[in-house]
Amino acid sequence: MKRVLLVVAYDGTAYCGWQLQQNGRTIEGELNKALSNLLSEDIQVIGASRTDSGVHALCNVAVFDTDARIPAEKISYALNQRLPEDIRVQKSMEVPMDFHPRHCSSEKTYEYRIINREFPLPTKRLYQHFTYVPLDLELMRKGAAYLVGEHDFKSFCATAADVESTVRTILDIQIEKEDEEIIIRVCGTGFLYNMVRIIAGTLMEVGRGSYPPAHVLDILNERDRQAAGPTAPACGLTLVKYSFEAGNFCEKF
Amino acid sequence: MKRVLLVVAYDGTAYCGWQLQQNGRTIEGELNKALSNLLSEDIQVIGASRTDSGVHALCNVAVFDTDARIPAEKISYALNQRLPEDIRVQKSMEVPMDFHPRHCSSEKTYEYRIINREFPLPTKRLYQHFTYVPLDLELMRKGAAYLVGEHDFKSFCATAADVESTVRTILDIQIEKEDEEIIIRVCGTGFLYNMVRIIAGTLMEVGRGSYPPAHVLDILNERDRQAAGPTAPACGLTLVKYSFEAGNFCEKF
Repeated sequence: MKRVLLVVAYDGTAYCGWQLQQNGRTIEGELNKALSNLLSEDIQVIGASRTDSGVHALCNVAVFDTDARIPAEKISYALNQRLPEDIRVQKSMEVPMDFHPRHCSSEKTYEYRIINREFPLPTKRLYQHFTYVPLDLELMRKGAAYLVGEHDFKSFCATAADVESTVRTILDIQIEKEDEEIIIRVCGTGFLYNMVRIIAGTLMEVGRGSYPPAHVLDILNERDRQAAGPTAPACGLTLVKYSFEAGNFCEKF
Repeated sequence: MKRVLLVVAYDGTAYCGWQLQQNGRTIEGELNKALSNLLSEDIQVIGASRTDSGVHALCNVAVFDTDARIPAEKISYALNQRLPEDIRVQKSMEVPMDFHPRHCSSEKTYEYRIINREFPLPTKRLYQHFTYVPLDLELMRKGAAYLVGEHDFKSFCATAADVESTVRTILDIQIEKEDEEIIIRVCGTGFLYNMVRIIAGTLMEVGRGSYPPAHVLDILNERDRQAAGPTAPACGLTLVKYSFEAGNFCEKF
């Protein structure tokens, strides 16, 4: 028996998110099907991040156990032959049997991409959120600064019902512009449901001048979802970096 | 009566190319339908470049005549409401009645994008051609140099049956690398059917070492499609710049 880790990139457009569902295609469902077919065992992966419907990833992580004799690092090649073209395993490797991607310390980075121009660009529409309203980057950066650190992010959580605590730590937020594209890059040790999209929606409100940057602190203090800005659309969000540290196991993807 | 020019961006993935067809959706067909609906006239656009099935554009150009009183520059906004989201008009403007986008001197730039890494990236798969074979940029640049200038490009033409001459002028070819992406940028005054894709396919053969750069000159001299490399897949190709000069009318898109 061995435990195998997969680094999985996907275009989330056609999926109802990561997590297995009764009705609707999911990344987890496609991986289970392709792995069970490849290894002739009933495989059920454990995912690191349960991304929402329409959210993309360059490096989500899943683990599973198998008795199969195929070397772990060869699984990526064989598995990609059996996956739809909008899911591609980037790496497969053996990991310690006690490694669990959600029960160890990890850091992840999400990018939220906004295209800020007069008309949308069709070739970017699935991976960027379009807005013609001019956004002021300096205001957005000032607003973002209030979110860095350990805070109660209850105002930035869609449904707090199923979590013990809404305290999370954001390590860094960078806001960059490349041509007409604005990228909000958020790095943290853990995120609440819809947290990055609500942060993006709130910082866009700051960028368009709906409220001053310092109001982001008021929003945090309210601890009420109604206080924050709208949830920005899923298509703009991509999980771009993931790192894990668990005893001797320490990897970055 | 006035003549209106449209600058049209599209994701070609879902279309059978630009040109109107009996069966199958085309960019021209969608524009005709949306314009006829908007202006309550039977509109048939004249396109500048009849791009192939699956090829993308940031700035293809179409003109049409109308008696409608709506100002030309407002048409883009109203038309985008009636177009599918993978087609977006970027600009609309009035042009001289005698301007015809295929009967005047023009320069256009195509980009062919190749992603060169171990595994494909799902979020880029519709807009880049994937290859895991390492490509040598210096060899590709040396091979490309033979193509710049006025030449008989018969070897780089899929079907020469319907053209009077296969002589064309390439003004410039640049080959750049951005991270794992290789971009072949070809600027010319006119192109034969599949010409840029056959150039890309041939330069990839040079880049992987299948033949030396100087063999590109032999291929030109053969004047035979069989001599050149394969036609690279449509998804990697995007029309990115267009300029026109016709009397007093001179515009870049």
